[in-house]
Amino acid sequence: MIILGLDPGLGTTGWGVIRADGNRLSHVANGQIRTDPSTPLPRRLSNLSAALAQVIHTERPDSAAVEEVLGNTNAQSTLKLGQARGVVLLAAADAGLAVGEYHPSTVKKAVVGTGGAEKRQIQAMMAVLLPGAKLAGPDAADALAVAITHAHHLASAAGMARRARVTA
Amino acid sequence: MIILGLDPGLGTTGWGVIRADGNRLSHVANGQIRTDPSTPLPRRLSNLSAALAQVIHTERPDSAAVEEVLGNTNAQSTLKLGQARGVVLLAAADAGLAVGEYHPSTVKKAVVGTGGAEKRQIQAMMAVLLPGAKLAGPDAADALAVAITHAHHLASAAGMARRARVTA
Repeated sequence: MIILGLDPGLGTTGWGVIRADGNRLSHVANGQIRTDPSTPLPRRLSNLSAALAQVIHTERPDSAAVEEVLGNTNAQSTLKLGQARGVVLLAAADAGLAVGEYHPSTVKKAVVGTGGAEKRQIQAMMAVLLPGAKLAGPDAADALAVAITHAHHLASAAGMARRARVTA
Repeated sequence: MIILGLDPGLGTTGWGVIRADGNRLSHVANGQIRTDPSTPLPRRLSNLSAALAQVIHTERPDSAAVEEVLGNTNAQSTLKLGQARGVVLLAAADAGLAVGEYHPSTVKKAVVGTGGAEKRQIQAMMAVLLPGAKLAGPDAADALAVAITHAHHLASAAGMARRARVTA
């Protein structure tokens, strides 16, 4: 199964694609989509949407995942993030992908082992979990981390289904 | 000129279309797009996007306008609004429409005459400014109000350009 992880942002959206064969994970590709702050907002969103559609077209993921957003006290930052996130979720939905959403602490726990891990620990763990992956940047690393979280979730859900069949 | 006003929201997005011939305004159509809260978020955004694309396809506006958002202290509400707004702005941009953005107080001043007008005053003024318009609801009324604001702005910009040519 090919999984697309996404870390939405208006300035930079990270994306990361992994292949999951049961519990075995491997890196496929990752990148960061930047939009020009001097461009009008609707055009920035359109550029983000087109770049993401291109990634989905090229990588042909079976499933997508994104972090839940808690929002912060700066309403304008939350609004900007929301606008980018809406466009990112739309791109996934319009491509027919189901989108898993994971709490940030769930993602940290899945890749570092503790829910309070720092951002640079996530980047460091990518070298361990996805050897050979060259990271486009911190947002791409976060996108790969949420893809890995989704893979774990799907594998344990499949495992539970198997065990249920065996014990039934 | 046909102007599309938009009042984005995840639950309900209002839209309103007016025709502006210089200073003469007339109502064309208005409506409200609702999305089902029991549907997963990416699918809601996709449904909103598709409904809006249909409105743009049917009404063929020349220009679009939306209110600026100030955001509020509830981060989750601001995030929801942002996600819907991102999809709405994207629909306009992907249809090749320039999008005017107006501060809420500018919109109130344009349609009621005072920047501190209440929501129900805006609805009441629509009956005066766009006689015969049957309003789909308060969000459609807000969308028509921002379309009217955009028409005023374009008319005064055109007037200034004319006067500049005359005095040049």
